[in-house]
Amino acid sequence: MSHLEQLLKNAKQRCLVSLMHANNEIGNLLDVNAVGDLCRTYNAVFHSDTVQTVGHYPLDFNRSNIHFATGAAHKFHGPKGVGILFISDSVKVNPMIHGGGQERNMRAGTENVPGIVGFAKALEIASKQMETDQDHILRLKNLLANQLVQTIPGVRFNGDWDGQSLYTVLNVSFPRTPQSELLLMSLDMQGICVSAGSACSSGASQGSHVIQAIPGEKEGVPIRFSFSKYNTEAEVNQLVQKLKEIL
Amino acid sequence: MSHLEQLLKNAKQRCLVSLMHANNEIGNLLDVNAVGDLCRTYNAVFHSDTVQTVGHYPLDFNRSNIHFATGAAHKFHGPKGVGILFISDSVKVNPMIHGGGQERNMRAGTENVPGIVGFAKALEIASKQMETDQDHILRLKNLLANQLVQTIPGVRFNGDWDGQSLYTVLNVSFPRTPQSELLLMSLDMQGICVSAGSACSSGASQGSHVIQAIPGEKEGVPIRFSFSKYNTEAEVNQLVQKLKEIL
Repeated sequence: MSHLEQLLKNAKQRCLVSLMHANNEIGNLLDVNAVGDLCRTYNAVFHSDTVQTVGHYPLDFNRSNIHFATGAAHKFHGPKGVGILFISDSVKVNPMIHGGGQERNMRAGTENVPGIVGFAKALEIASKQMETDQDHILRLKNLLANQLVQTIPGVRFNGDWDGQSLYTVLNVSFPRTPQSELLLMSLDMQGICVSAGSACSSGASQGSHVIQAIPGEKEGVPIRFSFSKYNTEAEVNQLVQKLKEIL
Repeated sequence: MSHLEQLLKNAKQRCLVSLMHANNEIGNLLDVNAVGDLCRTYNAVFHSDTVQTVGHYPLDFNRSNIHFATGAAHKFHGPKGVGILFISDSVKVNPMIHGGGQERNMRAGTENVPGIVGFAKALEIASKQMETDQDHILRLKNLLANQLVQTIPGVRFNGDWDGQSLYTVLNVSFPRTPQSELLLMSLDMQGICVSAGSACSSGASQGSHVIQAIPGEKEGVPIRFSFSKYNTEAEVNQLVQKLKEIL
């Protein structure tokens, strides 16, 4: 926050601040209200990537002084390939795609109607049972963390995992061994889908830039475990059992 | 074609030629092979909006010397909101949306998987029975044209309707009367959906720029009738009956 304030204070012109509400790989949560207040003070425009949090936390973009926010349906069991861009009434932007007047002139082209309806319905369902789902998913995350500490020597967790963090993500750093280096594939063969980073960089040969930026974390093998309301304690137990066998 | 050749001949630098394969409002078809040959001669890059023709005509972009072509699934009974951009191997372009490496680095973002699958399946179905559907739909278009000429005095057709024209579209110019000016709404109330222009300009207060560009056509009331393989002769007869009553 102090670095951001310093940047804003020294800016020669009006700034655009773009900060994720939650990091997709390690789950760290940003205090968007505090950032929004700071942006208001320095007259900056504030965009937040809220892809990880729409449908998982109650959000009030107006309260947070957010000018732009983005969200994606597949993060809360909606259809893939449809998202939102929130634009505050207080700002104006030019569209990137010109032509017809669709989507309030912001994006020309025939609308993805099934996707849009699916987004709205999925958000409605997610909002209705948000607290119940939060409790259930956080329990799974903590269960996995506790079991891993007891089972895998040298295991660590990346990010602010037991603090201001997504309840849906646990990023685990395993000690580097021939077994852990193949962990993604070994788990996949057991029917357990996990990720080494973000989907946007899948197939990339380089490691995650997020993990690389954490001091001392280059040595481990990072794996991102994600939980949904459809996961169960039995699945967490099964996962830990498989990890023990593989490692 | 001679105007295009003149423009290309006088061009000071490499040109981008963008011409629709078929006009969406009046159905006029372009000879894309001839335009492609001309573009090749003058080393121009050729884009064609093939939205009206993908799934309705056999297309060979390589044969036509097309560098870029666009298509949309909802034009051949696929889902709304998903389209294709064809890019020839012979050209390179920069993406408009940067980020992840999705869609061969051309469009970052989680893919619309159900839409993409739906596009492919709809195109497969459309391609399988293309000739049968063509014959059926062209019969409906000609049936409507013939019946209108016999039934509505002063009716005219816009574009090259009985020549090089889409078999799916008939653009009719009705003499301007208090009744014909409300025709769109009157037909809608009878459960018959027609269009006054393109969907991209629906709700616009101005008339169609395509119709306005046809000499002498500003005086009539243009209505675009579109046919699909699901329409029947009985529906055409019903439509003509309703038009007679309304007008």
